[in-house]
Amino acid sequence: MSIRIQKTFEALFALEDIRQIFRESLPTGFDAEEEALFRQRVAEIKTILGDLEAGTGSPKVTKIAGSIDLRTREEAYINIQPIQAAGRLTAEARKALISYGDGYSTCDACRKPFRLDKISKPGIAEFHADLAKFVNMDQARVVPGARRGFQAVASSLVGKGDSVIVSALAHYTEFLAVEEAGGVVREVPLNSSNIVTADATAEKIEEVKRESGKIPALIMIDHFDYQFANEHEVAGIGRVAHQYDIPFLYNGAYTVGVLPVDGKKIGADFVVGSGHKSMASVAPSGVLATTNEFAPKILRTTAMVGDITKRKFGIKEVEMLGCTLMGGTLLSMMASFPTVKTRTLKWDEEVKRSNYFIDRLLRITGSRVLSEYPRKHTLTKVDTTGSFDTVAQTHKRRGFFLSDELSSRGVVGEFAGATRTWKLNTYGLTWDQVRYLAGTFTEIAEKYDLTISERKRS
Amino acid sequence: MSIRIQKTFEALFALEDIRQIFRESLPTGFDAEEEALFRQRVAEIKTILGDLEAGTGSPKVTKIAGSIDLRTREEAYINIQPIQAAGRLTAEARKALISYGDGYSTCDACRKPFRLDKISKPGIAEFHADLAKFVNMDQARVVPGARRGFQAVASSLVGKGDSVIVSALAHYTEFLAVEEAGGVVREVPLNSSNIVTADATAEKIEEVKRESGKIPALIMIDHFDYQFANEHEVAGIGRVAHQYDIPFLYNGAYTVGVLPVDGKKIGADFVVGSGHKSMASVAPSGVLATTNEFAPKILRTTAMVGDITKRKFGIKEVEMLGCTLMGGTLLSMMASFPTVKTRTLKWDEEVKRSNYFIDRLLRITGSRVLSEYPRKHTLTKVDTTGSFDTVAQTHKRRGFFLSDELSSRGVVGEFAGATRTWKLNTYGLTWDQVRYLAGTFTEIAEKYDLTISERKRS
Repeated sequence: MSIRIQKTFEALFALEDIRQIFRESLPTGFDAEEEALFRQRVAEIKTILGDLEAGTGSPKVTKIAGSIDLRTREEAYINIQPIQAAGRLTAEARKALISYGDGYSTCDACRKPFRLDKISKPGIAEFHADLAKFVNMDQARVVPGARRGFQAVASSLVGKGDSVIVSALAHYTEFLAVEEAGGVVREVPLNSSNIVTADATAEKIEEVKRESGKIPALIMIDHFDYQFANEHEVAGIGRVAHQYDIPFLYNGAYTVGVLPVDGKKIGADFVVGSGHKSMASVAPSGVLATTNEFAPKILRTTAMVGDITKRKFGIKEVEMLGCTLMGGTLLSMMASFPTVKTRTLKWDEEVKRSNYFIDRLLRITGSRVLSEYPRKHTLTKVDTTGSFDTVAQTHKRRGFFLSDELSSRGVVGEFAGATRTWKLNTYGLTWDQVRYLAGTFTEIAEKYDLTISERKRS
Repeated sequence: MSIRIQKTFEALFALEDIRQIFRESLPTGFDAEEEALFRQRVAEIKTILGDLEAGTGSPKVTKIAGSIDLRTREEAYINIQPIQAAGRLTAEARKALISYGDGYSTCDACRKPFRLDKISKPGIAEFHADLAKFVNMDQARVVPGARRGFQAVASSLVGKGDSVIVSALAHYTEFLAVEEAGGVVREVPLNSSNIVTADATAEKIEEVKRESGKIPALIMIDHFDYQFANEHEVAGIGRVAHQYDIPFLYNGAYTVGVLPVDGKKIGADFVVGSGHKSMASVAPSGVLATTNEFAPKILRTTAMVGDITKRKFGIKEVEMLGCTLMGGTLLSMMASFPTVKTRTLKWDEEVKRSNYFIDRLLRITGSRVLSEYPRKHTLTKVDTTGSFDTVAQTHKRRGFFLSDELSSRGVVGEFAGATRTWKLNTYGLTWDQVRYLAGTFTEIAEKYDLTISERKRS
């Protein structure tokens, strides 16, 4: 890692130590001892800044709290890890987190009726309205991850033994949400291109009806799945859902926050997104949006009354368990939101860069793309059994040779040791970074005498 | 706010802007344009540092992401807000957050079997073992807030119409968790000192048995409640629970992380704690610990099988919905943990400072403490109807006069406008800060000619 990156972290940490002096002092200002400590810390930062500028010095801080390594992979490397790319914080989110990291930091100005989404300072109420509009739904709530959105919906709509239609590429958290509610998943099979179609969904509904005598309680489909990031027929499925009058949950974990999502146009009754996956936010965070039709059911407020005290907490929403993201998670979402809104409009460019990289990878003879191609997403599953894996067969480091070669060139995030089928994500990389990334793979291929064709193959 | 605090934030933010240059550059280093931008930013920080040291300059950054105010109340004020005190981050947690704020930052080295609590780099697996030991239970999981711990337990143990014993001072999230599971809360009445006793709990169990013909499915009791922070008879209730063979959930939202908790000694089957309330962590975070007896039930792994694909996700825990805190929330817990462990051993000092402040407040004639007294906790409910509220009656700012007087002296966190019954928390304040706080209330009382006695009254 560059010493400059190290010194950037050391300067940030030293400033946190300064901040701590303020926290432990009186509001009236420093006493002599605190002033001396403060000046000493400032002097230290000046030294760090000198090293930062010149690129000199040696690492002075290598652990946090005695045991946690600094994480600098986003600064020091190009990171192509499949699920991390669109969850990287924006600089604004990092600033918000510095400012609002403390536990219940959102609650300074919490007033009646005492609910997170009603707080106006910071602008949490407004953010909720913006979020709903962002996915073109009527109401939105923040939740601790997309999975907690699935849970809230499943818990409200799925009874014991009920069937829930999911994709044959459904994320495991959908399975768990259905299981927790007492339901049973019924998968829609993929077509030959690994796509979930509207027709196949309709057939599956009919199958469930025939077998159980009941229509499914819910349909949950991922717009782009986590395996191939293939695009599934969500709008068609939305129409099918409405024909059968089955509520439809649109799983936007890989879309909300990176590309434009119009829930009503899709025909979704619920739009679920992930903050840490696609909205440049701290985990666990996410969004659950719904219609005015379903809001009273999913966002129902508590009806429980204390038998002795007669206490009621009427404003609190049962499935949300009251307030959901009471601090840094929410503020990181809010601070990233202006950037997130803008970046969804530049999705075509992201897809172009994704295809640019995949094209170059495919020129390395024997490489294949398992996802639909050309790519419609930045997450891709590739198969390098015919290229890099042929090297791994005889290399003393086996599949790890590729990780070694990549990381020595500043690329990380591939699944370490994997040279057959693996996933990568180019989201958020600049053109320079994507070209560098493609060049890196080509360079490694050349080093090991793999054939490189002039034209791409698929 | 002191200009020095402002400049500390500006320096932190400017360093985040520098960090962003690294993120957008190639791993090979800066190009000429980036180098120029970098040097310009370093120069800016030098200017900020000059102002920081000298206490000069004017605010240059007042908003994050265009709309979010800087939150500096922990630096600029003494904050006595009832629920925020023990959730303030340690400096180490803030450093961890700087380093690990990005979405799925915990997942860099996630390997088989692909579950958060199995990750060893950073030391998440070890942290889970430490957490269990910390509350003297067999197993622990991190959860998105204590409420999600209640939910996991209620969802596993409480069936439709089942009774759950809670305290007449139960937190609303317990009500919601029971309601979501389909159960009904049955409150244990308080004794004349506002304490939930073991005897009253046993009587309530008998009452439920008589009325419903069934013993309750679960007992959930707060060790210290959120209203008065009175200490309830948890060890006795643990014994009663075992006599009736009813699972007992110990709600440690106000204890785990501030005072020593021994789950087995208490007889708890579940210990639930809150990260953002009492463990100096980012929200939403918390811990759910249990015994080897109950772990297979509460932490059961998924049994769901895809009907088409035959997919199984066997290692994933249903109630956890798989992984729970995949980034900055968890890392803040981990980084604060060494401090948190140590600070629980200094709880007596915290209670002394709490009593010191309350004693001084009670010397202001007409002030009362509604919580048990002497205090056993740092959170306290007071009644100043006979003191500060007499001023508010005729003051043109009404109850807000007290907020004005407090904030002009650097104290915040009281409920703005409240001069009758309100809550405060002295947790984490130094002796100097507590003395200052007590002096502030005395000074305000003197200013408004309230009588101050030499000896405390209760």
